[in-house]
Amino acid sequence: MAVITIIGSGMMGSGMSRPARDNGHEVRLVGTPLDREIINEARISGRHVPMKRQLPDGIKYYQIEELDSALEGTEYIICGVSSFGVEWFKEEIIPRLIPGVPVLAVTKGLLNQPEGAVMTFPEYFKKSLPPHLRGKVSFSAIGGPCTSYELMDRHQTMVYFCGEDSAALKQFQQLLTTGYYHPDISNDVLSVEMCVALKNAFAVAVSMGIGLAEKLEGADAYMYNPQAALFGQSLREMGRLLKFYGGNPDFACGIPGAGDLYVTIFGGRTRKLGYLLGKGKSYAEAKAELAGVTLESVVIITRINHALRELAAQGKVDPADFRLLSFLDAVINQNAVCDIPWQEFR
Amino acid sequence: MAVITIIGSGMMGSGMSRPARDNGHEVRLVGTPLDREIINEARISGRHVPMKRQLPDGIKYYQIEELDSALEGTEYIICGVSSFGVEWFKEEIIPRLIPGVPVLAVTKGLLNQPEGAVMTFPEYFKKSLPPHLRGKVSFSAIGGPCTSYELMDRHQTMVYFCGEDSAALKQFQQLLTTGYYHPDISNDVLSVEMCVALKNAFAVAVSMGIGLAEKLEGADAYMYNPQAALFGQSLREMGRLLKFYGGNPDFACGIPGAGDLYVTIFGGRTRKLGYLLGKGKSYAEAKAELAGVTLESVVIITRINHALRELAAQGKVDPADFRLLSFLDAVINQNAVCDIPWQEFR
Repeated sequence: MAVITIIGSGMMGSGMSRPARDNGHEVRLVGTPLDREIINEARISGRHVPMKRQLPDGIKYYQIEELDSALEGTEYIICGVSSFGVEWFKEEIIPRLIPGVPVLAVTKGLLNQPEGAVMTFPEYFKKSLPPHLRGKVSFSAIGGPCTSYELMDRHQTMVYFCGEDSAALKQFQQLLTTGYYHPDISNDVLSVEMCVALKNAFAVAVSMGIGLAEKLEGADAYMYNPQAALFGQSLREMGRLLKFYGGNPDFACGIPGAGDLYVTIFGGRTRKLGYLLGKGKSYAEAKAELAGVTLESVVIITRINHALRELAAQGKVDPADFRLLSFLDAVINQNAVCDIPWQEFR
Repeated sequence: MAVITIIGSGMMGSGMSRPARDNGHEVRLVGTPLDREIINEARISGRHVPMKRQLPDGIKYYQIEELDSALEGTEYIICGVSSFGVEWFKEEIIPRLIPGVPVLAVTKGLLNQPEGAVMTFPEYFKKSLPPHLRGKVSFSAIGGPCTSYELMDRHQTMVYFCGEDSAALKQFQQLLTTGYYHPDISNDVLSVEMCVALKNAFAVAVSMGIGLAEKLEGADAYMYNPQAALFGQSLREMGRLLKFYGGNPDFACGIPGAGDLYVTIFGGRTRKLGYLLGKGKSYAEAKAELAGVTLESVVIITRINHALRELAAQGKVDPADFRLLSFLDAVINQNAVCDIPWQEFR
């Protein structure tokens, strides 16, 4: 049995405690500064309030000030922060990582680089290592269709662990595989992580089809052709992006791409954003209904379109190949009405 | 304006009358011997009883005995029969086709050939042409996410018309494109038609996830990770089959593959079959609930597994790459219980 420290006790970080505890590992769950109440309540009642679930028995809880104790003797670290916590993780946690202790991140997203390039978070984390840790801490990441609720409820789940460090990937796979959690492993970080990020963008598009159906024919509408067309167009554009960036389009046509897109449109705030836009709300109105929160899906729509504009300006991509992505950008960032350009898709 | 004769007045054949009439073409709808009541009622009231819809105004209706009149002066033919009507179409209709009048088929399926090969219906129809028609009648086919109800209701729909005859494809595209019906064209018949056929097989698998959720957690279960995993695994295996048969896996990751799989799991009898199996019914029990009907999905599961067994025996494919397909075969044809082999998927 191993000692696993999860840093970040939000939904997915906490969700990872389920397979870890079911396999009998010692689990230390550390809240970020934003997670103070989650840790307080979990200590008292074992309840994860935002997730509306009991956490597994036997977890050891830590506030961020207790990080040193949580890291003492730990053998594996899971980074449980969302993309909005990346800078915090980089500044506060990475310098305190331990040589020889690998990190597995649940974080989803991509960063813009000059001239239309993109960077994955495992790459970004690696570049952020201080000199004494370089080459001594590896970063892997999780991709694929897995909602935190369902992982906590032990639903059958297939995901990828991706990273450069094959030994660490195999260790994490062995530690966390259960009868319901089935992580495959891959060294193709770019492909897996691009799927992970992009599915959030495209889930807005498919969910527009749900809102559109309700707008046109009411809440019980039987209207799936448009959603299906948006789903197919999403995967076309995802596959093209993977090819362009040198990734393997097979990932778009599998667990991390199509599978993850599928699960994302069945619930959560990204679905709600697309649904509201599809019903005819402006992005400003939709954002207000979502309590003013900027979603990860909005960030990725913005970033990938930023990259595509740079690439198009250099003549490296044809904007007509990414008409759904540019339409999403127009709706989110240029206040365009949600008038889906069906005839322009190819 | 053109004269279009649709032979077969079932759901999809009749559905094609919508874009054809919206574009002002003369539409002649011919019932098969099984469609007699549909044509009778349509003549009286304009109603398509099985589809629960009014047909477009201005259609000319024909019983099969009136086929000669329906074909007189026709410029285009749409074959509206299902795969179960293929032999009838071959025997009764193909000998009466007209030189220079191209055929577009809604028929979905694949035929087994020796040694694990498969044949598409456009290819089969072409081989069935009598000598005087050879080289003078081309067969194209439709693939992609389009339910007949929704086409009739003018929902936004993206499909492919595929065939060898580029001129005919462009003509059909021009004749039938509307503000809601967006056919793309492709000469890659094998890829499109394999997706069209296989999506029916895989829709059973994804729908098992729906039944499984209800069995484990009740009708309102929030359980999508398993469906998403099955969806992703389906596209993996579909892509591998396309590659094996020399097709282009991009089609699996787009409108005909993923898009069509998506729409198929939201309704109809294939969904119901998978749902019942996922709930724990045997295939015999499920078939009884489906009024004893053998579905196209069952035929394709059986045929593709027949092909895979032959290919595996020759050492040409690794059965481990098609574990979901072989599991479907075991449930349908070997009375296996629906115990999904999650840990064997790759």
